[in-house]
Parts: sequence; structure tokens; C-alpha cells
Amino acid sequence: MLCLSVKAISWIGGNQIGELQFDFLSLIDQRKFAQARNEMIEMNVVDLAEYISELEDDPRVILLFRLLPKEMSAEVFSYLEREQQQRIVESISDKELAGILDELFLDDTVDFIDEMPASIVKRVIKMSDPDTRRMINQLLRYPDESAGSLMTIEYMEVDSDWNVKRAIDAVRRQSEDKESLNLLFVTDDSRRLEGTIRLRDVLSAPDDEKIGDLMETDIISVKTHEDQAEVAEMFKKYDLVMMPVVDNENRLVGIITIDDVVDVIEEETTEDIYKMAAMEPIEDSYMSTGAFTLAKKRVVWLLVLMLSLILTGMIINNYNSALATNVLLAAFMPMLMGTGGNAGSQASVSVIRIITLGEVEFKDIFSVIWKEFRVSLITGSCVSLVNFARIMLTYHDFGLAIVVSITLFMVVIAAELVGCSLPLIATKLNLDPALMASPLITTIVDALSMLVFFNVAMQILPGM
Amino acid sequence: MLCLSVKAISWIGGNQIGELQFDFLSLIDQRKFAQARNEMIEMNVVDLAEYISELEDDPRVILLFRLLPKEMSAEVFSYLEREQQQRIVESISDKELAGILDELFLDDTVDFIDEMPASIVKRVIKMSDPDTRRMINQLLRYPDESAGSLMTIEYMEVDSDWNVKRAIDAVRRQSEDKESLNLLFVTDDSRRLEGTIRLRDVLSAPDDEKIGDLMETDIISVKTHEDQAEVAEMFKKYDLVMMPVVDNENRLVGIITIDDVVDVIEEETTEDIYKMAAMEPIEDSYMSTGAFTLAKKRVVWLLVLMLSLILTGMIINNYNSALATNVLLAAFMPMLMGTGGNAGSQASVSVIRIITLGEVEFKDIFSVIWKEFRVSLITGSCVSLVNFARIMLTYHDFGLAIVVSITLFMVVIAAELVGCSLPLIATKLNLDPALMASPLITTIVDALSMLVFFNVAMQILPGM
Repeated sequence: MLCLSVKAISWIGGNQIGELQFDFLSLIDQRKFAQARNEMIEMNVVDLAEYISELEDDPRVILLFRLLPKEMSAEVFSYLEREQQQRIVESISDKELAGILDELFLDDTVDFIDEMPASIVKRVIKMSDPDTRRMINQLLRYPDESAGSLMTIEYMEVDSDWNVKRAIDAVRRQSEDKESLNLLFVTDDSRRLEGTIRLRDVLSAPDDEKIGDLMETDIISVKTHEDQAEVAEMFKKYDLVMMPVVDNENRLVGIITIDDVVDVIEEETTEDIYKMAAMEPIEDSYMSTGAFTLAKKRVVWLLVLMLSLILTGMIINNYNSALATNVLLAAFMPMLMGTGGNAGSQASVSVIRIITLGEVEFKDIFSVIWKEFRVSLITGSCVSLVNFARIMLTYHDFGLAIVVSITLFMVVIAAELVGCSLPLIATKLNLDPALMASPLITTIVDALSMLVFFNVAMQILPGM
Repeated sequence: MLCLSVKAISWIGGNQIGELQFDFLSLIDQRKFAQARNEMIEMNVVDLAEYISELEDDPRVILLFRLLPKEMSAEVFSYLEREQQQRIVESISDKELAGILDELFLDDTVDFIDEMPASIVKRVIKMSDPDTRRMINQLLRYPDESAGSLMTIEYMEVDSDWNVKRAIDAVRRQSEDKESLNLLFVTDDSRRLEGTIRLRDVLSAPDDEKIGDLMETDIISVKTHEDQAEVAEMFKKYDLVMMPVVDNENRLVGIITIDDVVDVIEEETTEDIYKMAAMEPIEDSYMSTGAFTLAKKRVVWLLVLMLSLILTGMIINNYNSALATNVLLAAFMPMLMGTGGNAGSQASVSVIRIITLGEVEFKDIFSVIWKEFRVSLITGSCVSLVNFARIMLTYHDFGLAIVVSITLFMVVIAAELVGCSLPLIATKLNLDPALMASPLITTIVDALSMLVFFNVAMQILPGM
């Protein structure tokens, strides 16, 4: 019944699932182990992992975990947080651990080992069979964020000399261990990658056709040391679901599957968003990062931007006597700086995003500037007119209204031009365009707007 | 030779490919059609489409396109921009059009029809066979950004009564048309979805086992009207590569594959980033959106934020006499407002991102506030100390240094607390947390910082 309701909710959407109340714990307390086991088996592993995550360090987690069939417990295990994985491994026997390791996909095992303390790593290595141990050691050698660290070695390899029947038989015999079967990889005797063939093409071909005649030789692949952002770009560009990873001699060493790439895309987006808000990206999740580390990632940029804001202060200081003559001008400073900053950040964020998506590059800078110039004429006119009307209504001062409106119009145009060109110039200089986002633009625009403001005021207002 | 160099570059990364110079056009001019055809056939379709895109409205595009084998021309076609697709369809014969339509995946056909003028839609519908026509009409009925508009109907369906041998035979017979074969869908007589089975499990099972006994009944699916953002969430949460779409009676009507979901994730991220920079998202790509539309998407927020910046102006106005006594204070206003805004946007962007990723929800608000409070104590102390030192060095004025530093410390703390709590409060009120990003926070912090500044100054500085 419980499981039925889980499924009923699944039809609507994933988000509600987490809010359902399961009562496996009370089943455990009542020692109804068989019932708990049966109900858990019917659940989706991701939902079950979410439920177990929320129990945190409840000692009954180990009991629940032990009730699961070996394959399911391995799958649930791969979805748990580091801390809980560690607690579980510390509480189960060597035999249970070996069982889980046997069922885990190799890339999940490596991800897990990568984050565990040495005592657990030792135990895991000890409990793996020699073949697995060799492969784990090999995978652990690839640097973080490289193609090698993303790949798994559970792919399906066939020989170009085989015929279709032999290939299908091989797939049927070996398929249980393989991460995905959509694509088979054709290699020669020294394991050099010769081509790929989709399982669907193997299946729809006659039994006696040769694999070598069917395979696709135009292969998109990466080297092990390639950066993961580049890998994600290639998956998106070529609509891939799987990509072979080769070494320097073009020997097949692993495959990357799209589910891992989706995680990379999220990670890279998070990094971009952090940079756009003037923060260095954090490595772990926000909630498991300490306040000190978070502060460290933010304070450098805060200081840099603060020192450049002092420049704006110096500009204002320079016009001290003008300001003393007409102290009312100070009331318009936040609006001028703020609106200029907002317009600039609209332009810069738009352009940074299309650079990330590959829609524009440096050579398009003039068409981007021309477009943003027209946009700024429209938005600048709107905000200036509204401002003019407001100042006339409040202060009945035509001169003041003209000064503020002209300044605002010029500031918005300047802000959008600076905002759209800096990110493109950054790509030309091999800098990350995301660094040219709002805070930096705002700082530049602040200084600019005060310069314009006082000069326009001194030209137009009497007695300044 | 040419193709060899393309492949050599492929090993390094996708980005360089676009910069290679092909000379298909000169081959065409020299009427070396066979050579052009052979070299194009060896190319990756995405790269070829990119090359053709850059030729824009060169009339030789049609010639190049006609040289391609039918299947390849359809694939290249699906990667081209709308304008070029239209030009091609207008230049080719009905028979050629029918050939392309025959090879296109149905979801690509529908995407294409969706954006074409009526005259072309008519021709396409006319050239499709009755079955395809019926399916196109059905797919066109789903609203934009719904699961129905994302799905394709080229999935593999099997019957739970069949045995493994019969299922494999069916797959081998029908597989050529199907978008993906990793997962087979098991339905009953009224096409209600009963379960799914991975092809790998079919292949590794004995010939006479029944599909109904092997299938997985814990299905994650969506209804046709579900929002695409929700669909993307479910793919990420459950690590799916394919998901069935059902109608209200749980009848299977289509499948969504992960390559289309990757595009949705990008689209949704772009929308979030736009909202975070105080812009309404645009529907088309930036480069194909006119300046007027872009301005319209930005000006509303610019005006709203401008009017609230006026509040800050009024606060400053209120302390006119204090400012007139010590006009030097104005020089510190940009630094105080700017640094406060930067600290607030760091906090709000961090929290918005973890809300998007599902890492926190409203109930976590107190642990988030506690963390940000500690972060703000550290960052606030750093920037205040640096400021104190700088003012002492420049102005040798202890009172002024104390006033600015205390204000800055308080402003940073307030900014981070406001920045981290507003996005979480937005989720509680069913508002989009992305709207609570930097520009709004900056505006609030500006007002706050001026209030604090003048009050602290009036307490501490003599004669104010």
C-alpha cells in the first residue's frame, strides 16, 4: 500500500516524494523485519536513499541497510552522503562490504574511495579482488575534473573481425556488468580504438555481416587528461550519450556516460554563477562547507571591489565644494549609481551567458555592441523620462531634473556598452568572462556615473 | 586527407573544429561533385552542419545539401538554424522533401514545423504519409515547455506475455526507427504502461523467460502536461536516460530522452541567470532577438529598482544638514553601499543556487542563517579592519575611521543575513527565489547602509 502511494505520487513529479512519511523505523522497532524488507524492495532506490539520508546517524540505519538484497544495498549506498557511507562501512562486516563492492559500478567505488579516510580505503582495497584492485588504483591516478576521473571501464568491446551473430552472443553473455549497451566499441589487437557501432545497428543487421563493415569510423573521443568542462561541451555539441576515452596511443581505456556529464554541467554552472557573484567556487556542497572556508572564498573579491569603490569616493571628494553648494545632489547618487549598475549587469550577464553557450565569440563584438547600444537608447530614454517627471513633481526644479535625467541617460548607455564588451574582451585575453559580471561592472559604472554627474551639474546648475 | 585532420582535432576537443577551413565550395566551383560528396560523407554531421551554417545564404548550400545521401542530409538538416532550413525547403523538390522527412526523427520534424511559416507547414504535412501526419498533428497540440512537447513517439514497445526470444526478434526487426533501445516499454492490451525492461536484461536472460516476469514495475514517468523544468529535475534526481510519458489513463504516449533534457537544463539555467540579473527571460536566442524586445525584457525591472533606489535618496535627503556639516561623509557612501551590496549578493546567489539544486529548502532557514552569520562576522571584520587602516593613513581622523568601520561591519552582517534569508522566504511564498538575487538585495542594502551610516556618524562625530 505504502509503495502504491509512492508510485501514485511519482506520476505527478519527483518533488513531492521526499515529503511522504514512511514508517520503516517503527516496523524495525516492532521487529517486523520481513515486512520492512518487502516494502523497501518495492521502492525506488533514489527515494529510499533520500529516506535513509534523512535518518542521518540513527543506529537503525545499519539494520535497514542489512535487510536489503545485496544489489539494492549497493545501489542505495552509491546515493548516500559521504558521512553516512563512512558510518555504514564502519559498522558492517568484511563479508558484507565485499558484497556491496562486488555490486557497485567501478566509477562509484572510486568516487567513494576518493573521499574516505585511509583506514576505510585500506579495508575496501583489501576486500576487492585483485583485478578490481588494479583497476581502482588505475582510476584513482587521474586528476580531479579530468576525463579520466569521470570515466568508467565497464564498456562493451567487440572485435572488427567478428560477425553480427558472434557480437550479439558476446553482448548477451557479458551484458550484466556493463554500464550501458547502446554503443559497442570496436578495437584491434593492441586495443586501439577502430570504430563504434550502435547496438541497434548490430541487432538489425544480418547474422553473418562483419562488424568491421558496419562500424562507424568517425569517432568523437577524448584523452584521459582532458578537462571535464571540455568533455561536457562535446557531449552537448554532438548530442552524445556516451564517449570513449583513449590514451596517448589511442588505446581505449574507458567510457564516459551522459548521466555523469549532467552532473558536470551542473557543477560548471555553479562555478560560473559563483564567479558572476564575485566569489571563488567552493569544492564541496554549500551545507558541508565551513563558515571559515566560505568567508575565505568571498573576502578576496570583497576587498578588491572595496578598494576600487574607494576610487568613486575620491571622485566625489574631488567635487566636495560643488556638493557643499548643493547638498541636495547627494540624494541622487544612489539612484544614479544603482540604476547604472543594474543596466550594466543586465548587459554583462546576457553576454556572459551566450559566451558560455557558444552563441558568440570575440569576433562578434561589434554586432553585440551595436545591439546593446540600441537597447540602451530605449531603456535609457525610459528611465530618464520617468526620472524627469518625478523630479519635476517633487522638487519643481527644471535645472535639477535636466541634470539628473541627462546623467542617467548617459550612464545607462555607458553601463550597457561597458557591460557587453568587457566579457568579450576577457575571452580574447584568455580570462574567464564570468569574472566580468555584475560586481566588477557596477564598480566601474559607479565611478563613471559620479564623474558624469558632477560635470553635467557644474555645466547646467547656476552657482556651482 | 581533409577528414583525417578533422579527426585528429576531434581527439583534442570540440572547439577547434569550427576554425578549420574546408574547401567544399571551391570543389563545387570546380564541379568536382563526387569528391565533395565523398569528403562530406566522412565528416561528422554536427561539424558539417556547423560548416553549412556559416555559409548562411550562399546559393551553393543547396547544391552541397543535394549531394548528401538522404539519411545524412536529414541529420544535417536537423542541426541547422530556422532561416537556413526554410531556405533549403523552399529550394528543393517535393520528392527531396519527402526523402528528408522520411529520415528525420519525428520530434525533430515537429520542432521544425513549429517554427515555419504556414506555406511550408502545408507542404511538409502534404508530403508526409498519413500515419506520420496524424502523429505530427498530435504532437503539435502539446503546449510549449510541456513534457508532451519534448517527447518523441519512436520508442520500443513489447508485450508482457512475450518471451525473451520473441522480444529480441521484435527489437531486431524494428530497431532501425527507434530513438533509443536501452529501455523497452511493456504495455497491456489497452496500451497502459505496465513496466519497463532494460535491453541488457532482456539480452542476458534465457530465451524462454517471460517479459512480464523480468520487467521493472517501479516506473518513474510523467504526464504530457507536466512542466519541462520538473521533467529535468526528475531526470537528474533519478539518474534517468529515458522516461515514459503517459496520458491521464496511464496509457503510454511517448518517451523523453536525456539529450533533449540536457537542452532543457541549459534553457532553465539561462532563465534563472536572467532573473538573477533582474531581466525577464527571452524566448529566442540573444542574437536573433531584436533590440526592442531585449529592452522590453529589461526596462520593467530597471524602473522598479530605480524607484526603490529613490528611497535611499530620501534617506540621504533626510540627513541633509548632517551631510552639510561634514560633506566628507559623501565620499564614503559608494564604498559602503557597494561593499554591502556585494556581500549581500554573494550570500543570496549562494543560497539561490543551492535551492535550485535541491540542497536546501525553507525548513533549513535557521541553519543557513547561522552559517551566513558566522561568514559575515569574518568577512565583515576583514573589510572593516582594512578600511580602518586606510582611513587612518589617508585622513588621520580616528573618529571618521571608527564611524566608517563600524558602519561597514554592521552593513556586511545585515547584507548577508538579508541576502541569505530572502530567497528561502520566497520559496515559502511560492515565488521564484531567483528574483531575490543581487539587484533587489543591493537596493535594500543601499537604503539600510545609509540609515546606519548617518546614525552612527551622528552618535560619534562631534558637532553633527
